[in-house]
Amino acid sequence: MAIVIIRQDGKIDLWKEALLTEAPDLDVYSYYENHPKDDIEVALVWKHPEGSLAKYNNLELIACNGAGVDFIFEDPDVPEGIPITRVVDTKLAEDMSEHVLAVILAHLKNLDIYKLQQTQKVWKTRDYHRISDFKVGIMGLGELGSVLAKDLVRFGFEVQGWSNSPKSLENVNSFAGDDELSGFLASTEILVCLLPLTDKTTGILNKSLFKKLPKNAFVINVARGGHLVDLDLIEMLDNDHLSGAGLDVYHQEPLPTSHPFWQHEKIHMTPHYASVSDPKFVVPQIVENYRRLKAGKSLLNEVSRDKGY
Amino acid sequence: MAIVIIRQDGKIDLWKEALLTEAPDLDVYSYYENHPKDDIEVALVWKHPEGSLAKYNNLELIACNGAGVDFIFEDPDVPEGIPITRVVDTKLAEDMSEHVLAVILAHLKNLDIYKLQQTQKVWKTRDYHRISDFKVGIMGLGELGSVLAKDLVRFGFEVQGWSNSPKSLENVNSFAGDDELSGFLASTEILVCLLPLTDKTTGILNKSLFKKLPKNAFVINVARGGHLVDLDLIEMLDNDHLSGAGLDVYHQEPLPTSHPFWQHEKIHMTPHYASVSDPKFVVPQIVENYRRLKAGKSLLNEVSRDKGY
Repeated sequence: MAIVIIRQDGKIDLWKEALLTEAPDLDVYSYYENHPKDDIEVALVWKHPEGSLAKYNNLELIACNGAGVDFIFEDPDVPEGIPITRVVDTKLAEDMSEHVLAVILAHLKNLDIYKLQQTQKVWKTRDYHRISDFKVGIMGLGELGSVLAKDLVRFGFEVQGWSNSPKSLENVNSFAGDDELSGFLASTEILVCLLPLTDKTTGILNKSLFKKLPKNAFVINVARGGHLVDLDLIEMLDNDHLSGAGLDVYHQEPLPTSHPFWQHEKIHMTPHYASVSDPKFVVPQIVENYRRLKAGKSLLNEVSRDKGY
Repeated sequence: MAIVIIRQDGKIDLWKEALLTEAPDLDVYSYYENHPKDDIEVALVWKHPEGSLAKYNNLELIACNGAGVDFIFEDPDVPEGIPITRVVDTKLAEDMSEHVLAVILAHLKNLDIYKLQQTQKVWKTRDYHRISDFKVGIMGLGELGSVLAKDLVRFGFEVQGWSNSPKSLENVNSFAGDDELSGFLASTEILVCLLPLTDKTTGILNKSLFKKLPKNAFVINVARGGHLVDLDLIEMLDNDHLSGAGLDVYHQEPLPTSHPFWQHEKIHMTPHYASVSDPKFVVPQIVENYRRLKAGKSLLNEVSRDKGY
């Protein structure tokens, strides 16, 4: 029984070492080295090359190395009928929460505008806003969204959330399902998207949705580039319906230099780095699932193929 | 008995209207209109022209329209022997606290660097930091500093403070006096200056102080430009001892376009707008002191001419 690590970001050795430090008895291979394919029972994947998983005839588990598994379902050759697990990393949720808080406060205090003004040597004051001025609405109250909601409440924000099924979080007004989306949007002044990317949520951040937000709303997408219709965002910024956007994720990453987001003054970009999995928090979960698989026990954090998350 | 408002920022009418709304019985004049100088007993001032206060022979109170009164003592012709009051605006303290929090989080999450990268169409990730990574040290634990300290503790920061006399704030390690400054600095990774500007604190943010901070410390000055030795800051940024600085205040405002701060990539400028007095919070205090003065009662928030704050 052996594990193969498949990812294209040059971090295979880092993860291999972390796995072997946690569990020296494992057989761990890089996808790019010579390795016995028929021995592989677990694939630890992050944005694997399309079709790579189909090379393993005896695969028993696809372990996603992050919280979002959408890339797995985008591969038409992903093997059917074997479990997929994802990682629940509380540190990842805390990091995401701090990142979103930073982006919201920078917006309230006009820090991004001042940074641009500084490059142009412009001294011009801008009215600032307060934490108490805006209601934050979070789309997606899963592992990441619920931690963010709690943190924002603790920091003094008024918070509401929208999700597939109703959630009960202290001091967070919960909306659920298609019927309640319009009501949620009508009172959301800062919108944070933390939804999983599924067939249903692809392109959900579009013109029709933006129009339901109050004028001057600010949009933050830290989920997946696929949630956003890029040109709809630009249109709604340019007609002053939206006041700005903070984006960490894009349809294509790195974002091509020809993309209009780069030069848009109301768009504040970060390079998909709001929160990054830390091997020391993630590896124990992967090893635990490896042991459970060998022992025939139920797996942790298994993904529903039907729901797509 | 009448009040004159003296300031040079075009906001006299705003304050006059706010005073008269609160207390329609007052006689309020603009410094720039024709007015009976001998009737004036209260001067409401903010960065008044040097010598302007000396024109009032029957002045009984100089009411500063903000928290910092240093500009009053910089005027050699300020009348002796009459009380000076300042404003204690809890909203001002909360606004300051939110601004500093925004600047700290932007630093932790590299938002300013990403904004510059965006203007250059550069996609490059930078390691981020967490709230739990850095200890924040606040110089000055007065009205503003103590609110900031409490907020930062609530947000999960480790916080320490340095002030003239020891302060007791929950979960804030307090240092006091010259003897304890070095110890305070040695363990401060993010330094926030909220000191009053006095003879003793002018130029306190200098090379010798910066050297006592650990390498890669970040400096925030939201007090007065006079606290900082500008070229010392630039030297300590350029030799990589300091990682960056967030400045809201400057020796000269607006900052001349020839000043090297504008183009320094590690300096993040805001145009002295971290917190702005809101007439609706401030006016009642000024009216109350006017009534107290007339009734011969002790004044609120009187400034010590000896201490300079």
